[in-house]
Amino acid sequence: MGGAYGLRRSETGPCLLQLGGAAAMLLIRTTARSCWALQGVPRYEGATSLLRVAAGACTPWIPTHTHGTWSGSSHSGRSSWRRRATAVGALLGLGSALAYGGHCRQTAQAESSPQDTVLGPFPLYTREEVGRHRSPEQRVWVTHGREVFDITDFLDLHPGGRSKILLAAGGALEPFWALYAVHNQAHVRDLLREYKVGELHPEELTAPAAADDPYAGDPPRHPALHVNSLKPFNAEPPGELLGEHFLTPPELFFKRNHLPVPHVDPDAYCLKVEGPGGRTLSLSLQDLQRRFPKHEVTATLQCAGNRRSEMSRVRPVRGLDWGISAISTARWGGVWLRDVLADAGFAEEPESQRHVCFEGLDQDLTGTAYGASIPFYQAMSARADVLLAYEMNGAALPRDHGFPLRVVVPGTVGARNVKWLGRIWVSAEESPSHWQRNDYKGFSPGVDWDTVDYTTAPAIQELPVTSAITDPPPGATVASGEVTVKGYAWSGGGRGVVRVDVSLDGGHTWQVAEMQGEQQPPGQVWAWKLWQLTAPVPPGTTELDIVCKAVDASYNVQPDTVGPIWNLRGVLSHAWHHVRVTVAEE
Amino acid sequence: MGGAYGLRRSETGPCLLQLGGAAAMLLIRTTARSCWALQGVPRYEGATSLLRVAAGACTPWIPTHTHGTWSGSSHSGRSSWRRRATAVGALLGLGSALAYGGHCRQTAQAESSPQDTVLGPFPLYTREEVGRHRSPEQRVWVTHGREVFDITDFLDLHPGGRSKILLAAGGALEPFWALYAVHNQAHVRDLLREYKVGELHPEELTAPAAADDPYAGDPPRHPALHVNSLKPFNAEPPGELLGEHFLTPPELFFKRNHLPVPHVDPDAYCLKVEGPGGRTLSLSLQDLQRRFPKHEVTATLQCAGNRRSEMSRVRPVRGLDWGISAISTARWGGVWLRDVLADAGFAEEPESQRHVCFEGLDQDLTGTAYGASIPFYQAMSARADVLLAYEMNGAALPRDHGFPLRVVVPGTVGARNVKWLGRIWVSAEESPSHWQRNDYKGFSPGVDWDTVDYTTAPAIQELPVTSAITDPPPGATVASGEVTVKGYAWSGGGRGVVRVDVSLDGGHTWQVAEMQGEQQPPGQVWAWKLWQLTAPVPPGTTELDIVCKAVDASYNVQPDTVGPIWNLRGVLSHAWHHVRVTVAEE
Repeated sequence: MGGAYGLRRSETGPCLLQLGGAAAMLLIRTTARSCWALQGVPRYEGATSLLRVAAGACTPWIPTHTHGTWSGSSHSGRSSWRRRATAVGALLGLGSALAYGGHCRQTAQAESSPQDTVLGPFPLYTREEVGRHRSPEQRVWVTHGREVFDITDFLDLHPGGRSKILLAAGGALEPFWALYAVHNQAHVRDLLREYKVGELHPEELTAPAAADDPYAGDPPRHPALHVNSLKPFNAEPPGELLGEHFLTPPELFFKRNHLPVPHVDPDAYCLKVEGPGGRTLSLSLQDLQRRFPKHEVTATLQCAGNRRSEMSRVRPVRGLDWGISAISTARWGGVWLRDVLADAGFAEEPESQRHVCFEGLDQDLTGTAYGASIPFYQAMSARADVLLAYEMNGAALPRDHGFPLRVVVPGTVGARNVKWLGRIWVSAEESPSHWQRNDYKGFSPGVDWDTVDYTTAPAIQELPVTSAITDPPPGATVASGEVTVKGYAWSGGGRGVVRVDVSLDGGHTWQVAEMQGEQQPPGQVWAWKLWQLTAPVPPGTTELDIVCKAVDASYNVQPDTVGPIWNLRGVLSHAWHHVRVTVAEE
Repeated sequence: MGGAYGLRRSETGPCLLQLGGAAAMLLIRTTARSCWALQGVPRYEGATSLLRVAAGACTPWIPTHTHGTWSGSSHSGRSSWRRRATAVGALLGLGSALAYGGHCRQTAQAESSPQDTVLGPFPLYTREEVGRHRSPEQRVWVTHGREVFDITDFLDLHPGGRSKILLAAGGALEPFWALYAVHNQAHVRDLLREYKVGELHPEELTAPAAADDPYAGDPPRHPALHVNSLKPFNAEPPGELLGEHFLTPPELFFKRNHLPVPHVDPDAYCLKVEGPGGRTLSLSLQDLQRRFPKHEVTATLQCAGNRRSEMSRVRPVRGLDWGISAISTARWGGVWLRDVLADAGFAEEPESQRHVCFEGLDQDLTGTAYGASIPFYQAMSARADVLLAYEMNGAALPRDHGFPLRVVVPGTVGARNVKWLGRIWVSAEESPSHWQRNDYKGFSPGVDWDTVDYTTAPAIQELPVTSAITDPPPGATVASGEVTVKGYAWSGGGRGVVRVDVSLDGGHTWQVAEMQGEQQPPGQVWAWKLWQLTAPVPPGTTELDIVCKAVDASYNVQPDTVGPIWNLRGVLSHAWHHVRVTVAEE
């Protein structure tokens, strides 16, 4: 194990959690099955080398940025990835520990006992007042517990970078510290205390819910999310956060709700499965968990409207203005849908042209529930891995993601992954739901709202190959010398991404990115790949038009431009992704 | 049945055969299963409406071009397709019957008994001398039997168009008349006799084979084929002919041989299947046909190098310079590979990561045979329809297509559809064959022959979505007013094409083409779609840049341009297809 990382051995109980997201991404060739998440994900066979790396890293901390290499890792990938690992780790939290540690020690040397310092009394503020302080011009305020801090002067000292800490501006730190466990250390809290400027009004500490609002019962959400629609709630994480985690933390996982989030009592929950002879199977959550074997699948879900904002720049479309982050990945745990259908009396029929219909417990004011369907042969296939999931990244499903039970149809558009699942039946027809029949379909660029006929296009099921750049963000200034580009790539139908090409010159020349992800069997590659490329910036360049494009196992590729795939609903926006950045002067 | 077509009722024994290719293409919504070929294809359920159309058409001929409509057909497709049906029919042979008939009657009125006229004696020519007459400038000669004709003055009278008859220039008419049975009528032969200018030397009627040439035993081929390589034989039909037949006539089906065509005695033929316990199953052709149920699948095969010539125009690549026609469709008959593997002792294993390897009987001089492999789960899947085929379009496989037995892997690149199949075995590894491991793989545009590493890319198996324009041909002059564009579209993996967009202005605006083909179940759409669009030519336009692009069931699309998918082997060339034509002055 070369190098050493600055974590205190005594704090290494959750040592793995203190590694940045990048550490989680094992090179594919390293391990047969590797998987990792920020919270609560069990370890799998083959993740041993990661654990070795993590364990080796847990030596007494060294108070400066130390460049280590992962020589304990057995991968023989390209050197650029290995070279960048430390820098990436530093950005993603590991470096934070070093820097906080360093700062803390210096503070401790300068003051006798900073931990014991009590400051105050302080002025009282409302959350709304704190919320006005979101930029350096207005000063940047944050809260932690009931305390208010002005961290403007700390922005450039934040080891994770200014852009990351600014995500919390005007709001609470806790949701971010929950993501980056490295902050949960006494010396970090001590450091923060230096910036205290006030406290929250006592009545601000509990927020009453509005009455008569069907969305009043929706769960709290993470403030880092970009909200596209509040009611129903639709939101996505910033690209930079998305690209840091192979398994997306559930708080950051994109939310795509069509209706209010239902309150479901898990003890009273009952799944209805209509069997072939008119017999209906009623299954409690306990029945499901006790009667059927548990299975786990790592699968990426993507909204059909992901990257719609690029399409709406060509011509207006109807739909939520998603950026690049209406896509996320989780490790789902639950039971095979096929086991439940078999229990209800169905047998595999490879030639069947029937459909399995799902209905959610989420309803509009008229009682209409969300619904969707998938082909029966897919539901019953031993290779399609369709899951009735009650776990997400090792914990119970969060309410926003379908608590207590949802469908996960790997490789298939998010809209068919029905949440808060209430009822399953088999039919000769697709689900009669609006969202199956009259939405989520692709049309030619020439079709408009006067001419569209939803019966002429098939429902979107498997999604086409896509990729996007998560870092640097658009408009960023990158250092001259060399640039590191990061992103995700995914394709539907289990067709794993086999290559990502990256261009720094708008698509004239291409280099092959390195990919990280979980090894999944051919044809069952349900999870995305995260990728990165570090490449020299051509001398004298002042701007870069960074582009990525992916190739999947069937050698399908992304189209060059979005105009020719424009469609009135703005779905299936999967052209090359461009990010234009400025190169800093040398 | 509206209108009437000019075929003599007495000649309607093979009436169906006298309909042009277009008649064969039933609109998808018309019939549940429709299928048709020029030769030897059995009728299927649902083809009834086609037969009704054909039968209705066989009324006494009318000596002028009559515009009929197919009102007997039950389809409710767009009117443009129906409107064009007659014109298309005329182009493809039906009109030929009308015109020949008319000409014949006029001749009969002018002369007392032209059928009885005997002309001669005639000068004698060699085939080589005939072959020099291939253009109007050199005069256009053709042969029929031992007779030589100068048909230059008939070119513009040919009802099928000048371009079609010129395909036979300098050679024999028979191969073309075999494709277009309408010519096999006494009055056509009478008409031809008027143009007789000579006869072939008697010794020209049998051509001795060269000795010591491993390719000397190769079968004769159709002269319409464009030969990319003579030894081994690799050739494709002209696009205009390809696009006329939903089922490609075997003579026109593209030929892609890697080695000399083996001579296989069907009575001595024996397929070796290596079973799991070291036991080898030996199956004669009769064993296969008697012991396993027969199945039929309509599947398109495409060479990975199809459309390579477009890629080599970007930068040179290595490989045969295929045009757009290294793709063809046939109705294959044989036995399921999975039935044979089960007989050999294998069971389905959805999780298996093994491979089924195939070896051909075609060998190079060192005894190395052609070989390839497919995943075991695919071979055993009830949905993958992998066939050991002994029939093509209802007749025994032609020698060029693998007589007596070949593999047909629907949805998978041609290279895995091993011909002249000799041996099958199951292995933890892919086929060790050069063609599996070190060829037929896709690379990034930046990879060259110095940097390529074949182990870094997966073997091409499923192919990406593609389409091409078969008519008009590049450089053609089209009439002002309106233009009809025709072509094919296909995607690998059973992902049927769901839409074809056509542009007349280089991709700025798009219209949706109408598609025809066989209805196949979702996920098992192994056959291509033929499509056409008739659209007004914008007034004042002098040139059209016609473009097509297809969308498949997973909503994958073709890339806009070929440069960014360029690869050193020139495979997977599936960008938008452009055809530039001139518009005739009004």
